[in-house]
Amino acid sequence: MSIVEVGPRDGLQNEKAVIPTAAKIAFVEQLAAAGHTRIEVSAFVSPTRVPQMADAAEVFAGLHRQAGVRYSALVPNLTGLSRATTAGVDEIAIFAAASETFSQRNIGQSIADSLQTYASVCTEAARGDLPVRAYLSTVFGCPFEGAVPVERVVTLTRQLLDMGAYEVALSDTIGVAHPDQITEIIAQAATRAPVAQLALHLHDTRGTALVNVYAGLAAGVATFDASAGGLGGCPFAPGATGNLATEDLLYLLDGMQIGTGVRLQDAAQAAAGIERLVGHALPSRVFRALRSTTSS
Amino acid sequence: MSIVEVGPRDGLQNEKAVIPTAAKIAFVEQLAAAGHTRIEVSAFVSPTRVPQMADAAEVFAGLHRQAGVRYSALVPNLTGLSRATTAGVDEIAIFAAASETFSQRNIGQSIADSLQTYASVCTEAARGDLPVRAYLSTVFGCPFEGAVPVERVVTLTRQLLDMGAYEVALSDTIGVAHPDQITEIIAQAATRAPVAQLALHLHDTRGTALVNVYAGLAAGVATFDASAGGLGGCPFAPGATGNLATEDLLYLLDGMQIGTGVRLQDAAQAAAGIERLVGHALPSRVFRALRSTTSS
Repeated sequence: MSIVEVGPRDGLQNEKAVIPTAAKIAFVEQLAAAGHTRIEVSAFVSPTRVPQMADAAEVFAGLHRQAGVRYSALVPNLTGLSRATTAGVDEIAIFAAASETFSQRNIGQSIADSLQTYASVCTEAARGDLPVRAYLSTVFGCPFEGAVPVERVVTLTRQLLDMGAYEVALSDTIGVAHPDQITEIIAQAATRAPVAQLALHLHDTRGTALVNVYAGLAAGVATFDASAGGLGGCPFAPGATGNLATEDLLYLLDGMQIGTGVRLQDAAQAAAGIERLVGHALPSRVFRALRSTTSS
Repeated sequence: MSIVEVGPRDGLQNEKAVIPTAAKIAFVEQLAAAGHTRIEVSAFVSPTRVPQMADAAEVFAGLHRQAGVRYSALVPNLTGLSRATTAGVDEIAIFAAASETFSQRNIGQSIADSLQTYASVCTEAARGDLPVRAYLSTVFGCPFEGAVPVERVVTLTRQLLDMGAYEVALSDTIGVAHPDQITEIIAQAATRAPVAQLALHLHDTRGTALVNVYAGLAAGVATFDASAGGLGGCPFAPGATGNLATEDLLYLLDGMQIGTGVRLQDAAQAAAGIERLVGHALPSRVFRALRSTTSS
């Protein structure tokens, strides 16, 4: 089972506190030391729009990289790609939406325009042999439009793979999905794409992230995004209060004896370090249980 | 699908704040108005040991009861049964443990001694045609002993049914269960008891309550305990931070189009009323999401 640790990017990007660059670097290094092999480190986006990620290049420059770990970054366009390439990222991520309104509000482009942008990013990335991961947001519901047609999700997934992404992370941006929906959408998407190329990016806004992981596992999904301590949320999506926490995911998978290579205690320690800086208690239930009991 | 609302008892019993009797009555009445038909109202236990439940008789006396709703109370022994009968409860609940240490610490008796007590309670209850529900705690793990043998759980379940309980609520007292364990224990218990006589009482300490409900549904379980807003915990079990929240359970079941007769918005309103009195934010994720968004 593969975990994509998105705490340093999707997590910190949505925290109000300004985290010093050195602390971000230490956080990423601790995550790698805990056994993570796929870490989304930062984003090469507009520093005015997302000031939390303004030091992306400095974070990459300061990082002591471990062999076998892929350090990735979000990239919105060719400018971002160029900055990411200069910084020496191992992989980039692009970010499309399944809802028009969300696409406009989140990245300021229509879905069609964003796909054009991403196609040129993928072409350019391929020239440099840079792997591209794609997010598809609001797959299970949009805060502005409500339900999103499954056919659109399936078509967009196929388009993102066709333009060169090796994997599409189907994202429950606002945490509204329920397990039957996971089963249905994975089954539909699997008619047009190998399930090995599908990941789930879940938010725990309504406490349903783990039950959705479980349904995803049953449907054959083998890659899940998670954020240390449950860091983050989404400032552009009302009611989105946090990513699936890495510790909660690990507790489930460990209990089910599904190996990930990531050590829960060490992952929780990385989260504890960053908790001191974000200025509030991290929401992960397992993280909190570990800290409130002497044993366990 | 049947929900047993345990907020007024298992929830409030484990809250520090003293809740006025009138507020408890209003809470129970609001829960019934939201569509709940099985409500554990209070406990006829030692007022010194559990001061939060000292007004059990007054709560029952003040209650305007709705037709079709079963108002139950926890009863530890014949004295409690006698008080409960006088108060006119519709049903009683007894409370056994699957771990010796937990039994000693929680009710001050060995498992064997407690079963003798409960057998006499069941005999006496049968005389008055009073239905008896049984809890079996620490089924999925004990805070003091760790793992609990499945055979013991199965034997105790059978014994509780044999002495007259119509249903046994298999309880994850400290919220450590994972879904494979649910599947395994229900399968084992079902070899000695109809699954229709098994309920799940889950705690959300590690965020796994909903995924365990999902595994329970797949195993044929049709009755789940839940607590309004996620009220409660267990003061005798380190690390237990709250019952499965009714709102979270309803969001899952509503999404899966499994009918319960309980209206989520109204249930959340009952929780909002009691939240003002307990002195802290209730942990239910769905409850919090409902309060943080205008729509949804």
